[in-house]
Amino acid sequence: MSPRRKALSWRSRINGNYEVLKTEKITIALDAMGGDLGPEVVIPGAALAALRHPGVKFQLFGDQAKISALLSDKPKLKAVCEIHHSDVHVAMDDKPSQALRRGRGKSGMWHSIDAVHKGAANAVVSAGNTGALMAMSRFILRTLPGIERPAIAAIWPTSTGKCVVLDVGATVGADARQLIEFAVMGEAMASCLFNIEQPSVGLLNIGVEEVKGNEEVKEAGRLLRELKLPLHYAGFVEGDDIGKGKVHVVVTEGFTGNVALKTAEGTAKQITSFLRNALSSSLMSKLGAFFAKDAFFALKERMDPRRHNGGVFLGLNGVVVKSHGGTDALGFATAIDVAIDMVRNGLTHKIASDVAAVHAIMTADIAPNAQQAAE
Amino acid sequence: MSPRRKALSWRSRINGNYEVLKTEKITIALDAMGGDLGPEVVIPGAALAALRHPGVKFQLFGDQAKISALLSDKPKLKAVCEIHHSDVHVAMDDKPSQALRRGRGKSGMWHSIDAVHKGAANAVVSAGNTGALMAMSRFILRTLPGIERPAIAAIWPTSTGKCVVLDVGATVGADARQLIEFAVMGEAMASCLFNIEQPSVGLLNIGVEEVKGNEEVKEAGRLLRELKLPLHYAGFVEGDDIGKGKVHVVVTEGFTGNVALKTAEGTAKQITSFLRNALSSSLMSKLGAFFAKDAFFALKERMDPRRHNGGVFLGLNGVVVKSHGGTDALGFATAIDVAIDMVRNGLTHKIASDVAAVHAIMTADIAPNAQQAAE
Repeated sequence: MSPRRKALSWRSRINGNYEVLKTEKITIALDAMGGDLGPEVVIPGAALAALRHPGVKFQLFGDQAKISALLSDKPKLKAVCEIHHSDVHVAMDDKPSQALRRGRGKSGMWHSIDAVHKGAANAVVSAGNTGALMAMSRFILRTLPGIERPAIAAIWPTSTGKCVVLDVGATVGADARQLIEFAVMGEAMASCLFNIEQPSVGLLNIGVEEVKGNEEVKEAGRLLRELKLPLHYAGFVEGDDIGKGKVHVVVTEGFTGNVALKTAEGTAKQITSFLRNALSSSLMSKLGAFFAKDAFFALKERMDPRRHNGGVFLGLNGVVVKSHGGTDALGFATAIDVAIDMVRNGLTHKIASDVAAVHAIMTADIAPNAQQAAE
Repeated sequence: MSPRRKALSWRSRINGNYEVLKTEKITIALDAMGGDLGPEVVIPGAALAALRHPGVKFQLFGDQAKISALLSDKPKLKAVCEIHHSDVHVAMDDKPSQALRRGRGKSGMWHSIDAVHKGAANAVVSAGNTGALMAMSRFILRTLPGIERPAIAAIWPTSTGKCVVLDVGATVGADARQLIEFAVMGEAMASCLFNIEQPSVGLLNIGVEEVKGNEEVKEAGRLLRELKLPLHYAGFVEGDDIGKGKVHVVVTEGFTGNVALKTAEGTAKQITSFLRNALSSSLMSKLGAFFAKDAFFALKERMDPRRHNGGVFLGLNGVVVKSHGGTDALGFATAIDVAIDMVRNGLTHKIASDVAAVHAIMTADIAPNAQQAAE
């Protein structure tokens, strides 16, 4: 079977060849000391997740005394978790190199990632320092074969539901080949997250015409069109298409993705605060706000960042989910939901085989041209 | 006087040495056929502007019959304008090269820019095709001495007012030197627009630490810190800082700036549509919306894109303002307001002298090092 034929059938495996992991077999490692409030958010978050996902086990890494105290009134979580003590904690403002030096082999963050590496857990969730988490994850888990650089994928609320946007800060200045790897990884994540066979993928650009954009994006667009990868490539998308939900996966390099994500978060906050001020500006508007409180509650729910919490590190030999550092228990539980979806639907395996298939096609398609050129 | 001493005093000139142009001396050229609706928006927009700025004159370029018909019930505008007929119109979907070929020397867009070049008008406002307008403007007006690439600056609504964001699409992939030119040009524009002596300038990045970002941004940041240009450089800013109004001017290259702008616009639309749906979902919420209608009106006013319309082309030998193609008369009048502010406060002159001063400092500071290195 040619590489292309093999690759073309990859979607069939989602609900076919690939096994969906049973909940009872899933163990999640938690970096209990990560985040602005550490175990005070992580433990109640894990307790919520334990109620939502009966059968899932948890391994908690951090200060045993603090964790035990917080577990005392959570018997259901207590029954499904193990505590692994560590004295060293990575601080939220440690530089990645500092964190690696201080926390290597000692910190809760390190051990929680190492649990995935050793097979004791299927995924790790941390609300800790992003740079440190990425540095340690790369060090311990390594990137999957054929992946040049990892990516961080965010879950973005849209008018029609959610979409996946990557990279939001791991790889600044990705080239065309890396952008294609991001497309493949993001597509695998979206298929795990949304449970759909053929998520659509768009390349973020400043216009939809082929001539628009920088060299990397134009080249990645050309390859995605011409190589006919087994991937539903929907072409270029623009900044305002993300929130419209035009595609399931939006691909860009880490600088632009990070700016886009933070700009959208900032705009949402700005409008919410305008709205709050406007509604409290007069007695009539306060009365109106009271009558419409269910509507505002629905709006708040829909835009609640805790419902979209959980950045997934893609391209590593294991599932790592980054929770927002300032979230609460509800938000942390959402990040655990994401980790469980990724594990249950075999994210790492999907990425590994999809990337291998795509590289086989790219090599087969590009090699003969290179040979021709050499002749 | 050393270049640095000369440059350090540049702010004093805003309300000092530099003359503020009197309204009676200002003439604005309008590309009457540009935009989705052409003269049907441009003429009523100009009429609004004529009421707001008594004394300002207008030159209208386009289809004489259409323009005259629309002027018939606008005696105040009619009294202060001249019509220049042209048969050829640049289409909204013309490629820049096509537009240049078809419209060169013939189209209303061309002639309206040429009026600035010839000194018959002080600025041109067009709601036409952005790519064509930039291509023709560069061709006719040329860039100012020392400016490598022009930029398009957008006016962005913030929690505290407005800020200037550039580049939003003219120069994809700017290098450090170009980013510094953008900083200088954006600062000049902000001083004209907000009438302040020392607008603060931030470099858009994915973190505020010196080690964050791509090479171009890190290098531009280093130069802005070390060269001590006569510019209030406030350091790196992130995506969510734009809407907070953390600085008056946000500098980035054209790809990221365009994505950020469209992402923010998309997010604002998305939330507005969520809100509208929520408020019409029940009788109670509709009642609430009725009571709070003044509050919603205030919110709508504040976020109204027509109040922030007008992208300014910076770095050219003349003032060119691009109105949104889909705006209405109110929005077009705002773009004319912006053009008048730029002309009145001497934007082009400011940029020319500021850029010259900065280049003198950069050459003086960099040259001795280069000499040392060569020795």
